[in-house]
Amino acid sequence: MQFYDYSLIAGVIAVLFAFGTAYGVLKKPDGNEKMRGIAQAIKEGATAYLNRQLMTILVFGIIIAILIGIFLTNGTSLVIAFIVGAIASYLTAYLGMNVAVRTNIRTAQAATKGLDSAFRTALFGGAVTGFAAVGFGLIGLSLLLMLFTTSQLQLLIGFGFGASLVSLFARVGGGIYTKAADVGADLVGKTELNLPEDDPRNPAVIADNVGDNVGDCAGMAADVFESYAVTLVAALLIAFAFTKTATSYAYPLLVASTGVIASIISLFFMRVNKEGNVTRALYFGIGGSLVVAAILDYALTIMTGTTMTYFIPVLAGLVISFALFAITDYYTGNNAKSVIKVATAAQGGAGTDVILGLAVGLRSTWVPLIVVVIGILVSYYEAGVYGIGIAAVGMLSLTATILTIDSFGPITDNAGGIAEMSGMPHAIRKITDKLDAIGNMTKATTKGFAIGGAALSSIALFVAFAQAVNLTVIDVLNPLVVVGIFIGAMLPFIFSSFLMESVGYAANLMVEEVRRQVRTIKGLLQGKAKPDYAKVVDIATVTALKSLIIPEMIAIVTPIIVGFVLGRAALGGLLVGMIPASFMLALFMANSGAAMDNAKKYVEEGHFGGKGSDAHKASVVGDTVGDPLKDTAGPSLNSMIKVVSTISILLAPVFLVYAAGI
Amino acid sequence: MQFYDYSLIAGVIAVLFAFGTAYGVLKKPDGNEKMRGIAQAIKEGATAYLNRQLMTILVFGIIIAILIGIFLTNGTSLVIAFIVGAIASYLTAYLGMNVAVRTNIRTAQAATKGLDSAFRTALFGGAVTGFAAVGFGLIGLSLLLMLFTTSQLQLLIGFGFGASLVSLFARVGGGIYTKAADVGADLVGKTELNLPEDDPRNPAVIADNVGDNVGDCAGMAADVFESYAVTLVAALLIAFAFTKTATSYAYPLLVASTGVIASIISLFFMRVNKEGNVTRALYFGIGGSLVVAAILDYALTIMTGTTMTYFIPVLAGLVISFALFAITDYYTGNNAKSVIKVATAAQGGAGTDVILGLAVGLRSTWVPLIVVVIGILVSYYEAGVYGIGIAAVGMLSLTATILTIDSFGPITDNAGGIAEMSGMPHAIRKITDKLDAIGNMTKATTKGFAIGGAALSSIALFVAFAQAVNLTVIDVLNPLVVVGIFIGAMLPFIFSSFLMESVGYAANLMVEEVRRQVRTIKGLLQGKAKPDYAKVVDIATVTALKSLIIPEMIAIVTPIIVGFVLGRAALGGLLVGMIPASFMLALFMANSGAAMDNAKKYVEEGHFGGKGSDAHKASVVGDTVGDPLKDTAGPSLNSMIKVVSTISILLAPVFLVYAAGI
Repeated sequence: MQFYDYSLIAGVIAVLFAFGTAYGVLKKPDGNEKMRGIAQAIKEGATAYLNRQLMTILVFGIIIAILIGIFLTNGTSLVIAFIVGAIASYLTAYLGMNVAVRTNIRTAQAATKGLDSAFRTALFGGAVTGFAAVGFGLIGLSLLLMLFTTSQLQLLIGFGFGASLVSLFARVGGGIYTKAADVGADLVGKTELNLPEDDPRNPAVIADNVGDNVGDCAGMAADVFESYAVTLVAALLIAFAFTKTATSYAYPLLVASTGVIASIISLFFMRVNKEGNVTRALYFGIGGSLVVAAILDYALTIMTGTTMTYFIPVLAGLVISFALFAITDYYTGNNAKSVIKVATAAQGGAGTDVILGLAVGLRSTWVPLIVVVIGILVSYYEAGVYGIGIAAVGMLSLTATILTIDSFGPITDNAGGIAEMSGMPHAIRKITDKLDAIGNMTKATTKGFAIGGAALSSIALFVAFAQAVNLTVIDVLNPLVVVGIFIGAMLPFIFSSFLMESVGYAANLMVEEVRRQVRTIKGLLQGKAKPDYAKVVDIATVTALKSLIIPEMIAIVTPIIVGFVLGRAALGGLLVGMIPASFMLALFMANSGAAMDNAKKYVEEGHFGGKGSDAHKASVVGDTVGDPLKDTAGPSLNSMIKVVSTISILLAPVFLVYAAGI
Repeated sequence: MQFYDYSLIAGVIAVLFAFGTAYGVLKKPDGNEKMRGIAQAIKEGATAYLNRQLMTILVFGIIIAILIGIFLTNGTSLVIAFIVGAIASYLTAYLGMNVAVRTNIRTAQAATKGLDSAFRTALFGGAVTGFAAVGFGLIGLSLLLMLFTTSQLQLLIGFGFGASLVSLFARVGGGIYTKAADVGADLVGKTELNLPEDDPRNPAVIADNVGDNVGDCAGMAADVFESYAVTLVAALLIAFAFTKTATSYAYPLLVASTGVIASIISLFFMRVNKEGNVTRALYFGIGGSLVVAAILDYALTIMTGTTMTYFIPVLAGLVISFALFAITDYYTGNNAKSVIKVATAAQGGAGTDVILGLAVGLRSTWVPLIVVVIGILVSYYEAGVYGIGIAAVGMLSLTATILTIDSFGPITDNAGGIAEMSGMPHAIRKITDKLDAIGNMTKATTKGFAIGGAALSSIALFVAFAQAVNLTVIDVLNPLVVVGIFIGAMLPFIFSSFLMESVGYAANLMVEEVRRQVRTIKGLLQGKAKPDYAKVVDIATVTALKSLIIPEMIAIVTPIIVGFVLGRAALGGLLVGMIPASFMLALFMANSGAAMDNAKKYVEEGHFGGKGSDAHKASVVGDTVGDPLKDTAGPSLNSMIKVVSTISILLAPVFLVYAAGI
């Protein structure tokens, strides 16, 4: 058997598990007719968005595929790899989200049987996304490995680039959509019309629920799928360039395969105890998958006779993934010290709430950075640059578990919405509300993982890039490299500026449309007439897909220009300047937003005057500011740095020949 | 004559001009008794702060001087240079601010004679700071050059480090003070008590006016003085390391000297025309000083028989300084497109106002970056690394003009306050209000210069650092360098998190104190009893000086730890990762804040409902959020990156011997 046979098998297992889980979840009861009506609207909106997004991606993708096919050596093979990567990514997002928008209603219904039942329903619904990601990733990569000879390993970058392109669209588009809808719904609903969250009379309410799915489920899935795919590719490229041993080719794929097993087992750790402690169940799940993965990887290392110096980086990667989860929780979790600080500041008004929120986000950057830095150093001293590659693989090997927990978020959020809108009894809404709160936590904490994963995989890609452009030294005393570093550090700032602006702009459009409906549809606010949900969904869809063009072009074109005009060393500088700046900015944004979100929840729990108080109003403003920071701009940077990195490697052969500079 | 004789003469001319200007301004009439009482309170508060700050600096400074004296080779000489640098910097801040707090009242009084008279009073008051900075800088440096032999040029870093240390305290402490007072005064005054800006019944009003002086005048002066000093030092160090010709030693100092002349001449360009266009006068001033400086530098290059390849970088530097001024104005000026966008978003509430404000700040980073990058490339291709050094000198040679225009800001702000509090007639208040608005613009635009100057001088220092630690290559493919870059990119985030938090915390203390006074002092709100201004001033002083300890320790200790533990290559990485990340973050913060500030003013001018409307309330929140971004965290990063850079060079000989890593 070839080494990729094992990963193919692991991939098939993962996909089968995903389908099995989907089957299990979907056969659960889906509630009464009122619930079904709401769920149906969400489902339709989400599917419509994903279909339109697909059209946009197809346009870009086909143009890019043609360009690759014509201009690059081995164009056909690259295009095949590109298509496989893109399809695997989209399938993940599509399948995952389609199950998620069907699990939300079943979670609400399961809540009638109790907390654990609802929890497990949402969890297994989320698991479909998680296992689809690793499954399609491993299958796609293994098939390409069968197709290419070992000497053609560098063609795998096409696979990574395919995943990157889809991720860029799904993450950015989904991010703009979800927050335009959320901010728009809140602005007009809560502030102007004084409606509670998830009130069916708010015409933007369905768009808001759709947004959770296209952003946190599909967008996040594409993002983490991309990290998973490019990390494996980077590890193989590094092995191809440096170690060149059969073991070093096999090891990353085997580690990824054990991750599948560990993730399956971890699902059984996640049970809510008698005290109803859901957070504990999630920590058990992640901690469990880490321990199981570590044990399996250790056994694997022994059994295959691989050197222990390879195991240490993998272990470092596993620890990083757990650490990033826990650190994010420390800074932004419910009742976290920092969150209470922000809530306290809300007493002084919206201004101080946001000032403290931004301060918390800025503060939260250093521990993750130190963790990643130590991981890099340990891995490097154990196994050289290859160590950095497999540390990233180790970290991403928990992808299935993390994505499961992440997708749990939009499902429980929607379940809460459905329970609220369909007027389910208070006792049941208490359960869905609790799960919704936990879902908010998982959305935030898994973002820490996604950001760290993007950074680590980009570092691995950077190493692969240097090899691909045949540079053994990239000297920062060369002004071109310094210039590259400067441009790299600028990219995340300009990129996220467009996203922030788009959310503000799109939210305004939503507000206007909602106002129009309130004005023109008689009996709307009395609950006698139904709002035109579809129209709002449509506005969000169109605006999101339109707004992503400029930032995406910047991400795609900048490395090409720098590579051609300033040369490959400057492009190396760009990558190495971009990664840490993006990493910091993404953490800052994501954690600022999460802290302000939970500060609002803290006030709503009854502190500092509770709901309706001045502190509450102030904290709502903070939450609004935090929304695009944490769900649009911050996470989109993940996709940006990976697409810039993969493009740079993809075009490396061209830069080698045509580039100016040095 | 030695080359430093010329710079000594230029320095003496500058100082004489500063004193002459001070004399001219101070003999102007200072208004009635009521005005004097208010101005006296501001003066006392500001002086008290500067004295206490001096104590703090002395404690740190003496400890550091002792450590330098004991542990470093040529310790005594370094300590002398360090003391000269620190004294020159403090003298600048002290003298400048002392004149500023006496010019404010005279500006208000001059407004009775008309706009131009008030404008020129404020301008010449500000000129004292500007010319003191370049004067003391040139004199200090020239004296040290007389003291040291040419082979001891590297000892000049002590001078730069002295300036850095003072700047770190003055910028950070002043920044926290000014915004704690401003936010505190606004929160309780405008929101709770419904008092207008600068109402004498607000106990925090004097602290607010003091803050403008210690922050925008003394803090900014120390910051730009530092850039000026370290840039000249860096240029000399680079000359010492690379070119080693007499011309290359002389050229930077001569360029700085022509800058003095150009800046003096430029003051005569700045006259308000009949239409009362003050902005035009300022642009004429800066543009004029640029043109004059360019002509003088050209003449100088010809006359001394210096190669034209040296002139081009200087010209590039001059253009950069003007460009950064104009770009900042483009993004954040009154009626700027971006500002109107933010104001428009204020209609949707405080949340969207801040979202757009942040978006504008993020967007504003790219043009300055491209300008600096082109400047670096042009300079390098003209004159190698030395070109980068003299480009920075060229840019900073306009320091006197820029600081003049900057210090104009707090003076006119205070003049407005005094006019308001002393109840001057409406026609006069209209003049002071107009100047106040222009002062806000100059505070914002000169910040662009200060941030760019800090970046450019740090790049020059980085080049000098590499030479000092004897590295001819700093390879980013070395993981230690990558780790350094990551840590460097993290520094501005963690540093500014403390500043943001301090402002939030200190503002809260102020709010509590104001509430206490309103509660306990009878007749306060009726204007029958005077508030205890001094108590509020005291709280701001103590909190600001206490809060700066941790961030400053981080800035000082991090490069030392990285240098010792990870080695000099990693420290090189740290510098090269820190500079662009700081540059971007500082621009983002400063321009976000300025845009939200002016958006508020735009609404107040009567747009979208004007004062008192919902849009106005929303824009006030944005202004509050922007305050610490633009006046505390953003500009403080300038001082941080320079102190980290100078420490790294200062300790270079030690790292050479003891450092681990490679």
